[in-house]
Amino acid sequence: MAGKRMGRQTIRLETPPSVAGYGNVVGRREMEGPLAACFDGSGRNALFGERTWEKAESAMQKQALIRALDRAGKTGADVDVIFAGDLLNQCISSTFALRDQGIPFLGVYGACSTMAESLALAALFIDGGFASCTAAMTSSHFCTAERQYRTPLEYGCQRTPTAQWTATAAGAVILTASGQGPYLTHVTCGRIVDKGVLDSNNMGAAMAPAARDTLAAHFADTGGGPEDYDLIVTGDLGHLGKEILLDLCRLEGIDLSSNYDDCGVLLYDAEGQDMHCGGSGCGCSAAVLTGYLLPGLREGRWKRILFAATGALLSPLSSQQRESIPSICHAVVLSKEP
Amino acid sequence: MAGKRMGRQTIRLETPPSVAGYGNVVGRREMEGPLAACFDGSGRNALFGERTWEKAESAMQKQALIRALDRAGKTGADVDVIFAGDLLNQCISSTFALRDQGIPFLGVYGACSTMAESLALAALFIDGGFASCTAAMTSSHFCTAERQYRTPLEYGCQRTPTAQWTATAAGAVILTASGQGPYLTHVTCGRIVDKGVLDSNNMGAAMAPAARDTLAAHFADTGGGPEDYDLIVTGDLGHLGKEILLDLCRLEGIDLSSNYDDCGVLLYDAEGQDMHCGGSGCGCSAAVLTGYLLPGLREGRWKRILFAATGALLSPLSSQQRESIPSICHAVVLSKEP
Repeated sequence: MAGKRMGRQTIRLETPPSVAGYGNVVGRREMEGPLAACFDGSGRNALFGERTWEKAESAMQKQALIRALDRAGKTGADVDVIFAGDLLNQCISSTFALRDQGIPFLGVYGACSTMAESLALAALFIDGGFASCTAAMTSSHFCTAERQYRTPLEYGCQRTPTAQWTATAAGAVILTASGQGPYLTHVTCGRIVDKGVLDSNNMGAAMAPAARDTLAAHFADTGGGPEDYDLIVTGDLGHLGKEILLDLCRLEGIDLSSNYDDCGVLLYDAEGQDMHCGGSGCGCSAAVLTGYLLPGLREGRWKRILFAATGALLSPLSSQQRESIPSICHAVVLSKEP
Repeated sequence: MAGKRMGRQTIRLETPPSVAGYGNVVGRREMEGPLAACFDGSGRNALFGERTWEKAESAMQKQALIRALDRAGKTGADVDVIFAGDLLNQCISSTFALRDQGIPFLGVYGACSTMAESLALAALFIDGGFASCTAAMTSSHFCTAERQYRTPLEYGCQRTPTAQWTATAAGAVILTASGQGPYLTHVTCGRIVDKGVLDSNNMGAAMAPAARDTLAAHFADTGGGPEDYDLIVTGDLGHLGKEILLDLCRLEGIDLSSNYDDCGVLLYDAEGQDMHCGGSGCGCSAAVLTGYLLPGLREGRWKRILFAATGALLSPLSSQQRESIPSICHAVVLSKEP
C-alpha cells in the first residue's frame, strides 16, 4: 500500500525512502560563511573552470550530483529518475548538467522551492513503487541570477536593504527504497499565495505568506504542531521574511519562536558578511540541506526536521507588467527514524 | 499495490486513472486549421481580453482549466494537485493562471513535452494513492514565444523553411481514480538526448532523436512494438522532424509508417496555411490531445494511443553561448480500456 493522504495537501509516505547520499558545491562567499566547514567543495572562482557563468552553474550541478552519487555508492546508471530545475530561463543549468548523463529526467520549476519540490517528487516515486533509486537536484549562481533577474553585474548597482543575495550553490540528494536514513516521511504540497507584494527586491515579504499557508496546512493535516519537530527550517525567507513568518504564525496561534530558522539566515554571517537580508536562490536551501541538515540528522543533532523551501514565482517580465509576486512553499519531513 | 516498473524508463499503472475531463482554448490560426471543429473556443484576437500577450496566455490556461473542470463535473476545490508549466521564462503563464485557484501546485518544466510530463505525473499521483483527482495543464502563445525566443514581432523577420509556428493554444486534463475512461495505462519517462543540432530554427531535427530514444525504450520496456497502437503521435516534431523520426526508427527496425503522426503536422493545413514546418509549442500537443485525441478515444475512433510529446530544452542564452539543443520526449499510453 502506497502513501496515504492526510488532508488535502499532505501525504504520509507508508514506505519512507532513505537518503542514500547528498552532495553540494558552493561559491566563495558561501565558503566564508558560518557553514563553510559543512560544504563538500568550492570553485577557485565564480566560473568553476567554464567560460560563462551559466556553464559554471551547470558544472556545479554535475559536481554536486557526482558527490551525492559517490556518497550513496551509486552511479548515474542506478538512478531511475532525476527531478531537477533551477532559476535560469528554461532551467538550462539543470538540462545542460544532465544532457550527457542518460538518466531519465523530469524537469520541475518551483523557483527557490525547487529543492523541496524535487525531493518530494523523488520520494513519492519510490513510495509509489515507480522507482527504487531517485535523485533531486538544483542550483543557483549569484552572477547568472543577477544578470537575468536584475541588472548586468558590471553596472555595480546598489542593493536595497531588503534585498537577499542569490547563493552560488548546487545540491543533490539520492534517495533509495531502503537504507540507514534519514528518511523522508511526509510531503506537504504548497498552493500559490499572492498577497500583492510588488517589490522584487523584497522576496522575503512576498514569500512569507506562502510559508505560513503551507506550515498551517501541514500542522492541520497532520494534527500536530511545531513541537513535533526539533527544527523547522524555511528555504530562503531571509532575515526580514523570517520575522514576518514568525509574526504571521503567531497571529494564528502557531508559535515558531523556539525551533525555527531559515536557510537564508543560516548561510551567511549577518555581522561579518554584508549580505543585507541574507541568502536566497534554489542553491541556498539546497546547500543548507545537503551540507548542514542531512548530516545533522545522520549525526543525531536533530531527530525530525520540517524542511519548507519557499519560491517566488515571478519573472522580470511579470514585474515589468506591474504584476505582484505569486509565491509557493513546499514542505517535506526528514526524520532519523522511518 | 501501486504501479510497476517495466525496464528502466516505463511504469505500468496498476490502477490506471481515468480522464474525467479535458478542455482547450486556441488562437485564430488554429481555428483556421483542419482541427478547428475540435476545439472548445478561441479569442476574438491574440489578447484574449487582456492587456499583454503574457497575460493573455495566462487567461487561456484559466479558460482551458474551467472547461476541463466543467466537463469533469468538478471544481478547483476537488483537485488535489495540479501539474503545470509552459515556455515562458519562470513559467509565468501557469503560475499567474493558478495564483487565485487555491489548488496545490507542482510546477514542471519540459518545454514542449510539458503536456505529456504533467499528464504522467498527474496519473502517477493517482496510481500511487497520493491523490484522487489531479490536473495537468500547459499553454503556448505565438506572440509571447516569438518575442522571448526570437525577435520582437514588430521586426517582421522572415522565417526559415525549417521553422515551426508556435501554437497559440492551452489545454488542461482532469484525471480521477475511477471513471469511464479513456485511461492512462503506461508512462515512459524520457532521457535528455543532444545530437549536436545548433540551429534553433530547426527544432524538429533537434527533437527527433529524443523521440526515437523514448519510443525505442517504450517498445523495449513493454516488449511490444508500433503494432500495439492504433495511433502513435509525437508532440511537435513538425513535417521535417516527422520524416527524420520515421528514418531514425526505420534504421532500428521500428516501422512507424502505418500508424504514426505528429501534433505539429495535424494542427495546421500544410497546403492552405503558410506555417512552414508545422506547429510547435507546449500548446500544440495540448490542443491536439484535448481537442482531437481524447475525444477520439471516447468516441471509439482509436482504442490505444501512444502520446509522445517532445521538448527542446534550450534557451536563447544557451544558443547565444553556442550550445547545441538538448531535447527530451516523454510518452504516455492512453487507452479506451483500463
